[in-house]
Amino acid sequence: MINPNDPTLKSWIAVDKDSDFPIQNLPFGIFKREGKLPRAGIAIGDYVVDLAEAALTGYFRELHVNLQIFEHNHLNPVIGMGKEKCRMLRQIISELLRHDNPELRDRPDIQKRVIHHRSSVEMLLPVRIGDYTDFYSSIDHATNIGKMLRDPDNALLPNWKHLPVAYHGRASSICVSGHNFHRPKGQMKPPDADQPVFGPTKALDFELETAFIIGTPTQMGDSVTTSAADQFIFGMVLFNDWSARDIQAWEYVPLGPFLAKNFASTISPWIITLDALEPFRVEGYTQSPAVLPYLHYTGNRNLDIQLEVIIQPEKGEPTCVTRSNYRYMYWTMEQQLAHHTVNGCNIQVGDMMASGTISGPTPESFGSMMELTWRGSKPLKLKDGSERKYIDNGDTVIIRGHAEKNGVRIGFGECKATVLPAKN
Amino acid sequence: MINPNDPTLKSWIAVDKDSDFPIQNLPFGIFKREGKLPRAGIAIGDYVVDLAEAALTGYFRELHVNLQIFEHNHLNPVIGMGKEKCRMLRQIISELLRHDNPELRDRPDIQKRVIHHRSSVEMLLPVRIGDYTDFYSSIDHATNIGKMLRDPDNALLPNWKHLPVAYHGRASSICVSGHNFHRPKGQMKPPDADQPVFGPTKALDFELETAFIIGTPTQMGDSVTTSAADQFIFGMVLFNDWSARDIQAWEYVPLGPFLAKNFASTISPWIITLDALEPFRVEGYTQSPAVLPYLHYTGNRNLDIQLEVIIQPEKGEPTCVTRSNYRYMYWTMEQQLAHHTVNGCNIQVGDMMASGTISGPTPESFGSMMELTWRGSKPLKLKDGSERKYIDNGDTVIIRGHAEKNGVRIGFGECKATVLPAKN
Repeated sequence: MINPNDPTLKSWIAVDKDSDFPIQNLPFGIFKREGKLPRAGIAIGDYVVDLAEAALTGYFRELHVNLQIFEHNHLNPVIGMGKEKCRMLRQIISELLRHDNPELRDRPDIQKRVIHHRSSVEMLLPVRIGDYTDFYSSIDHATNIGKMLRDPDNALLPNWKHLPVAYHGRASSICVSGHNFHRPKGQMKPPDADQPVFGPTKALDFELETAFIIGTPTQMGDSVTTSAADQFIFGMVLFNDWSARDIQAWEYVPLGPFLAKNFASTISPWIITLDALEPFRVEGYTQSPAVLPYLHYTGNRNLDIQLEVIIQPEKGEPTCVTRSNYRYMYWTMEQQLAHHTVNGCNIQVGDMMASGTISGPTPESFGSMMELTWRGSKPLKLKDGSERKYIDNGDTVIIRGHAEKNGVRIGFGECKATVLPAKN
Repeated sequence: MINPNDPTLKSWIAVDKDSDFPIQNLPFGIFKREGKLPRAGIAIGDYVVDLAEAALTGYFRELHVNLQIFEHNHLNPVIGMGKEKCRMLRQIISELLRHDNPELRDRPDIQKRVIHHRSSVEMLLPVRIGDYTDFYSSIDHATNIGKMLRDPDNALLPNWKHLPVAYHGRASSICVSGHNFHRPKGQMKPPDADQPVFGPTKALDFELETAFIIGTPTQMGDSVTTSAADQFIFGMVLFNDWSARDIQAWEYVPLGPFLAKNFASTISPWIITLDALEPFRVEGYTQSPAVLPYLHYTGNRNLDIQLEVIIQPEKGEPTCVTRSNYRYMYWTMEQQLAHHTVNGCNIQVGDMMASGTISGPTPESFGSMMELTWRGSKPLKLKDGSERKYIDNGDTVIIRGHAEKNGVRIGFGECKATVLPAKN
């Protein structure tokens, strides 16, 4: 078998060299064609491979699975096949699409059923998310927030370097890219006011994050070690953890963020498998002081994924407001998952665990408006001449991400949403 | 139609006067008989009415629903019928069970299929919980915690009386009564230590809570008013929000409790409908300062529900360690739901929202060991002569609750679990 990550592989489907989805990627998603039911698909270039039709054609015989798993409105039953079968599935698709394989290439009749142009499909939320956890694992982000909200000289709290701090978030309001939402309303207490007031947030922010999706469940009482963690992670998406900073500041003590976050979150539609990202492993952040043994790990467990955020005003040209990288993460995904389960907390297929805002060390790489404008004190100038302290109504915020090496670009597609005015 | 809450109603099924489940209650649950698939049921006395068999017998014709909704391993499709149809269903069962109705009473052949003794069934988790939220709405609890952990003279934080503070919790580890769990392990930092240590928690606590279950969903962007909130709430259960206090103290700043809570939570198996609890409405806590308009409400919106917690050591006799009451809640369920959705956060059928620890004003009515022993400084003496600062391995913690008026006792059954030793 050929390695599906081999940079020399080419497909008989023409793929633009700037495409996020070359044959080395093959991410999983749920798509819907007009008048049809949702189905599982795999992206290649500008096309989607219809996994339900591919299954009916007989391409997946060797998987020995119930072929109806590809006909749900979420990927959970596909991912739930387990890491080995998902790997086989990606391998089968990789082989089918290879430039020198005539099996599907020379059968336009079958292609008509199995291959759709992506412009003809709508992408849906890829997984049914059971529980969603948000970590807080970027040291530059945690330091920036600590400097602004607490003590500039002791920005990191005492626990931060000993454990990957995290909290539970709301799963119901996680939407796929393209799902717009209304500016949230809520309680906030202006610094000069005696009493809280109610109204639309005046400090709507994005948070540049990624998230990983659980592919293998555990039972209550079980723990996942850092060395086994990869086997429990199916893949990654881009994630915008929308935040209302004024609501957050007033509500979050002592139990953490609640209404400041749970009104909407946005994820990108294609899940990039951890397998496709394997060539982009890099050394992790040097952790000092040393972590407790259950958080030890070996090898290059970080990932070099370039990330950027674009603000597109309603009528103005888009401006890239930050460029960051996943490698700025202090804690690895494996450490996050080991920590999450060390107390016996069970995980389920489709659970989502987000990185927390990924900020780099320089002001141009900060992952939120709160950091980029230093709490509004240094507004950002956009290309259309307008200024932003936070996000305006009508603004579309787009997160993009990709890894690149040896001429192969593994991209994430887009994670975008437009802010609509508050409802009356 | 007769009011199913009428205190004079009697059933042809003999119900002990101390039973939690008289004909005025009729709570919903999921049960399983040996060798059979899970089904929806309604409790009466020592029996359960098999709703799937009742449906097959034709009793639910007037509901005009797909009868397979009673054959799932969770109540979501039943609850999802909506409040009006659930009300009709309870009414139909109430009529079927009335002492003067021969329809089922005089048909032992049908009874054999439709009525099972509760000792012959296993109770399962009643709902598939999408998202779980935990409030913090007892003023005595919040004051006690504030006194112990922060400032005795300013125990309540500034936001506490302005909004019902809450956080998101983990849904996957919520189990039905009777599901035991292992003592969780985790990081903690002893007060005299420089560095955190790892091991089984030394401060495992219960939290005496109730929870309500959402019966009607909303769309993202919609809000539920306090006056409409009841229409979105199906019913209530008892809830034990198990907590590891030493893990919590180290991890919870700044984003709230995480591993200290998500290892296990326990709920009682029968959902008591809000309709059955309506006769027990009482005046709410006097809220001062006045709350913002979206939190205003009128009428008697609190509930008089007596609550107690029993510790049953592995080999000793049980001791009731606290007696509290739901009426000590500062914030009503309607206010909690209005707050939760005021930012447009959507809710789904089966979502669970817990009260937070319900403590009363006196030390005998505190809702957690942390409060009862004042952080371990005043150990509790149990009837078997042993002492407890927190919960020991082998201890079973049982929460019970009931409302009582005009000779009618609407009970919740039991919410119990035993603490097993930490896993190696």
